[in-house]
Amino acid sequence: MKQVLTIITMISCIYTQSVLSQETKIVEDFKPSSVNQPERKFPQVNSQGRVRASISAPNANKVQLDIGGVKYDMIKDANGIWSGESNPQDEGFHYYQLNIDGASVPDPGTLYFYGAGRLGSGIEIPSKDQDFFALKDVPHGLVSENIYFSKLTNSFRRCFIYTPPDYNENIKTHYPVLYLQHGSFEDETGWPSQGKANLILDNLIAAKEATPMIIVMDNGYAYKPQNNQGNKKEQPASVFEEVLIAEVIPMIDAKFRTITNREHRAIAGLSMGANQTMRIMMNHLETFSQYGGFSGTSNYPSTDVIDASVFLDGKYKDGDALNKKIKLFWLGLGTKEPSPFPKSIGAFRAMLDQQKIKYVYYESPETAHEWLTWRRCLYQFASKLFR
Amino acid sequence: MKQVLTIITMISCIYTQSVLSQETKIVEDFKPSSVNQPERKFPQVNSQGRVRASISAPNANKVQLDIGGVKYDMIKDANGIWSGESNPQDEGFHYYQLNIDGASVPDPGTLYFYGAGRLGSGIEIPSKDQDFFALKDVPHGLVSENIYFSKLTNSFRRCFIYTPPDYNENIKTHYPVLYLQHGSFEDETGWPSQGKANLILDNLIAAKEATPMIIVMDNGYAYKPQNNQGNKKEQPASVFEEVLIAEVIPMIDAKFRTITNREHRAIAGLSMGANQTMRIMMNHLETFSQYGGFSGTSNYPSTDVIDASVFLDGKYKDGDALNKKIKLFWLGLGTKEPSPFPKSIGAFRAMLDQQKIKYVYYESPETAHEWLTWRRCLYQFASKLFR
Repeated sequence: MKQVLTIITMISCIYTQSVLSQETKIVEDFKPSSVNQPERKFPQVNSQGRVRASISAPNANKVQLDIGGVKYDMIKDANGIWSGESNPQDEGFHYYQLNIDGASVPDPGTLYFYGAGRLGSGIEIPSKDQDFFALKDVPHGLVSENIYFSKLTNSFRRCFIYTPPDYNENIKTHYPVLYLQHGSFEDETGWPSQGKANLILDNLIAAKEATPMIIVMDNGYAYKPQNNQGNKKEQPASVFEEVLIAEVIPMIDAKFRTITNREHRAIAGLSMGANQTMRIMMNHLETFSQYGGFSGTSNYPSTDVIDASVFLDGKYKDGDALNKKIKLFWLGLGTKEPSPFPKSIGAFRAMLDQQKIKYVYYESPETAHEWLTWRRCLYQFASKLFR
Repeated sequence: MKQVLTIITMISCIYTQSVLSQETKIVEDFKPSSVNQPERKFPQVNSQGRVRASISAPNANKVQLDIGGVKYDMIKDANGIWSGESNPQDEGFHYYQLNIDGASVPDPGTLYFYGAGRLGSGIEIPSKDQDFFALKDVPHGLVSENIYFSKLTNSFRRCFIYTPPDYNENIKTHYPVLYLQHGSFEDETGWPSQGKANLILDNLIAAKEATPMIIVMDNGYAYKPQNNQGNKKEQPASVFEEVLIAEVIPMIDAKFRTITNREHRAIAGLSMGANQTMRIMMNHLETFSQYGGFSGTSNYPSTDVIDASVFLDGKYKDGDALNKKIKLFWLGLGTKEPSPFPKSIGAFRAMLDQQKIKYVYYESPETAHEWLTWRRCLYQFASKLFR
């Protein structure tokens, strides 16, 4: 008996050590991140998805790599260069920063991305399916920056417009339009930058897996002007829905060769944008026929059972009518998303099921509330739009 | 006599004190810089053109504001916030960074701009004439990002294209094109971002002071692929001229409604871009009829007398023929530019004078080798183009 126990203990120890060494051993196959500035060697990523950062800070006391909510201590060499590695990260795109003696700053090695309420560093952990958003030698559409003055907000605003590769050659063709929104603490640069919306569509269109379409990416934060100046404690009233319906869509229809009916207009968004655009869709079925909600629904953050007779003023009450009116109702979620997203979206789906409302549901494998989930959602969703 | 001396000494002392206090006294009218990230209060600029930076770095030993080649020590308060001011800076746009215990990093408060070989912080010192590049409620053109694969460099490249406000409405109109290049250690984002090329043209066109035109802004760094891989000590061969002539211009003429003759094509650049585009202009008078050189000429960095019979293979030998062929030859320089720009451009102008070649010469008051010089140059130059 004692011998058996000893053997079991030994096997157990060997097993534990093996798992531990797999977890802790750093594989030395680091390569510069694909979103570094030109010629910059750091940050790097290895095959385990670890991030290695490096910065010269000869007189610093403490330097940390701050990624995924964890701060990893870096170590100084004889030349004053600090280096350090994170634990393995999920595949896809992540925001991060360096912390130098308490100062949270962008890594000077990377390109910068607007998210988490700041323009800062980002890193790309190569994903197995990265081909669908890769820059390839296929015809490329344009991404155009459009500045406009909004009377509703009394301010200058900006949207980006993707036009498909053949837009500037087929000068008599008119195109359907997808209005595509970012999440909270992000802005109109999210989709054309880290979201890779243009490359995803270029690749889909080249493979004839999507209908050529225009995509409009605006800023989801829009407030009435009086609330910008008055009592600062007052919650400003969002007028994004009004800006989109009364200002953006007419502007896009005037400036671009769009097909100006509901059958050829879709609206989608991620997280906060999914919540916003779902409300806009349901309030304006005369304007849109197709909807995509990526990692978000309008009951957020509630996970309670939804009563269709009162939710969103009863907009989901008549399932039959909606099934006739809505051409595509599409929902997506990452399998690693944190609470309350799975349960909140689950509650929404249960309501749809109860109302017998048809919808498509997609799960992004092994991704959380991050951009690889949303890139995959756009890829899946866009291939079903305007078909 | 002694009394007179005493009085002179006193006056002198009072005068010196007065001048000193003017120089050293910091006027407390700082305002957030116009190129800060949304909601960011720092960095700030005051009416003297001083920059005040501020960053939380509770455990740092030394923090400095690094601008205009000078590092200014910042001071820590009880909450660990470091603050400090620079001396007055010239009006216009400047690159800068913070230095935290030896680490040179972007200021987390600003937008980021590519220049000086890195994507980093920038600041705007309000200029008296800033109205000409201000964002105003006038019709705005689009700035479109265009990705293309270059066979000559065997790489993906990118250019930005400004189309004037009426381009998407007047769908039968064809437009003249200006090819506009950045300087050394900058890229294709320079003109549409800190250069404000789109706003300058929007304002000029709204005031009917410029002919509506397309502007193409490409990357001036382009190398043969073999030189990217081979012996690293080998100087790579630039093929920018070939890329522009053989790849970019045909692509632009195919994708956009251009007028495809030399009379409606101009080329201009700043600093390194002025040098490059002058050579391209003189090698391709069949392609371009109008030229703008901002803070640069092809004899750079030489200040020697130019012999027109040999300079650029004798391209300036026949002044009469050039005066007939070239519709506009335009040169600009800031009055505070450092050596060798004034003398080098002076030597070039002396050659033009000797050859009796007609040209326009503009001096930007009180600006150095920086973006306010080049914004003013574009403003002046564009108002004379295609007229």
